[in-house]
Amino acid sequence: MTISTISKPHERLAEILAGEMEAVNTLIRTRMASEHAPRIPEVTAHLVEAGGKRLRPMLTLAAARLFGYGGDHHIRLAATVEFIHTATLLHDDVVDESAQRRGRPTANLLWDNKSSVLVGDYLFSRSFQLMVETGSLRVLDILANASATIAEGEVLQMTAATDLRTDESVYLQVVRGKTAALFSAATEVGGVIAGASEEQVRALFAYGDALGIAFQIADDLLDYQGDSKTTGKNVGDDFRERKLTLPVIKAVAQATPDERAFWERTIEKGRQQDGDLDLALNLMRKYGTLEETRTDALAWAAKAKTALTALPDHELRDLLGDLADYVVSRLS
Amino acid sequence: MTISTISKPHERLAEILAGEMEAVNTLIRTRMASEHAPRIPEVTAHLVEAGGKRLRPMLTLAAARLFGYGGDHHIRLAATVEFIHTATLLHDDVVDESAQRRGRPTANLLWDNKSSVLVGDYLFSRSFQLMVETGSLRVLDILANASATIAEGEVLQMTAATDLRTDESVYLQVVRGKTAALFSAATEVGGVIAGASEEQVRALFAYGDALGIAFQIADDLLDYQGDSKTTGKNVGDDFRERKLTLPVIKAVAQATPDERAFWERTIEKGRQQDGDLDLALNLMRKYGTLEETRTDALAWAAKAKTALTALPDHELRDLLGDLADYVVSRLS
Repeated sequence: MTISTISKPHERLAEILAGEMEAVNTLIRTRMASEHAPRIPEVTAHLVEAGGKRLRPMLTLAAARLFGYGGDHHIRLAATVEFIHTATLLHDDVVDESAQRRGRPTANLLWDNKSSVLVGDYLFSRSFQLMVETGSLRVLDILANASATIAEGEVLQMTAATDLRTDESVYLQVVRGKTAALFSAATEVGGVIAGASEEQVRALFAYGDALGIAFQIADDLLDYQGDSKTTGKNVGDDFRERKLTLPVIKAVAQATPDERAFWERTIEKGRQQDGDLDLALNLMRKYGTLEETRTDALAWAAKAKTALTALPDHELRDLLGDLADYVVSRLS
Repeated sequence: MTISTISKPHERLAEILAGEMEAVNTLIRTRMASEHAPRIPEVTAHLVEAGGKRLRPMLTLAAARLFGYGGDHHIRLAATVEFIHTATLLHDDVVDESAQRRGRPTANLLWDNKSSVLVGDYLFSRSFQLMVETGSLRVLDILANASATIAEGEVLQMTAATDLRTDESVYLQVVRGKTAALFSAATEVGGVIAGASEEQVRALFAYGDALGIAFQIADDLLDYQGDSKTTGKNVGDDFRERKLTLPVIKAVAQATPDERAFWERTIEKGRQQDGDLDLALNLMRKYGTLEETRTDALAWAAKAKTALTALPDHELRDLLGDLADYVVSRLS
């Protein structure tokens, strides 16, 4: 591993938390298994084992360790958070794949839809069992509320994504549901199970919330200006899929009547033609909305770092601060 | 209302529990509402308001009342149970509708799929918040385990329904997931919240479990011999949809090689032709499997009634006994 690789904060987190993450992985594998329905681990294995960054479970472990937690419930909660994340991805597949194939999915896709819905439900129920095992009603309350925010955000996104009336406050609600609610629940429950004070739990919430928002805004911005080699996405995917994200919302808010007609045609009605992406980018440049969006992402990252000041001085606290810098470091 | 109508036990239950059911309905309407996503009540209203029998929430209320419960958590739990039931129906829609349309759903159907998945998730999360409000870890444990049984049963059904190796024990697991797990959780949590003894809680579980199994076996049998005016289904729907239910499983178990080839063609491969339903019915009559299935349903109903003997002598206990008789009374 090169110096520059190891210096990424999520990789340093993974190194410090390696032993506990191993326990989390073992628990995930054990609880995915189904005596009665062997298809379940088949469907989930590629998602859970694919080796994503595992950011959410590491947030839970780090929060618990910050307060010197000596028990093992943080392992259960880290697995819980990863199960919820995986279940959400499975259900998103149904929603997104259907849209991409324009109403004509293959039989294979439908089989996947069935599996995605039902195996997602199975993972939710498994996560529910795991969190009950901690015996903490406070933890259950946090995760129940996070689940409601996630589900509500997903429904809101479905209706708001192509509606030009969607403003920055609606965007923020969608982002909280899509990303920030599980980040903040992940850090909160880690602190709660470790006996953090009310003020510290509030700080953990504020950190996870702001980190998640910074992360999602950065993601939405990179869709318009990222390097496809790094991001794995093509520039303008969100535009083509008619998703109203922050750079567009800011441009729509200042649009002339002609510009508004352009957004209505391309986003609301989805009648796109060659050259529309360039026109859209020109409008975003005209109003400086890409730069404004970058400023917003940096502000949320700064807010995340500020929240950390209420937490104990600790190597992991510094790493969480580096992580906040890192999620916006890709923004030019 | 005529005498014969009012004598149906679920209608008498509804009459006795009318005040509490009104409170349950109010709570359901309040908790379905979403400030941020008005589409949610739109999608759920027709399901929740359509006026099904509301058997599951009534089971919870009745179980709590049997033990003279004076609090209001049973209202929350009854709403919880109805939310879980509705969420399951929404997710089943995705799974079933997709299959029926043979891989070519309309755009409208896909929009429904999106709504069904996400609004189902929203209702699950709302039910989760409601149960946490009771503050009872025991209740949470029961509902977490029931959720896992339901989800596992659904996945198992997806793979087992057209597989001729499916035997009676697999069928029973599917039925527990599909129906009995929520019935038994409904009665159990009613008793737990009312402070029933361990023995009584076990009896409530046994009653709900056996009632749910009797109910589902009766439903599967009526598919082959019911009056379509009463059942709202056409005779043989399950056969045409290649669902292995108990009367067929029993016939497959005794099939000659030729008969087995028939079942392989019609159920496993789904290559059905005119006259196949009659042939299938003849095979079921040959081995007396419709009669055997009826005997099984009656035995489960009897088991449900036996479980009630461990519960306090009470008007509602007698009604629960009548209910067990009623679910199998339609079987000729």
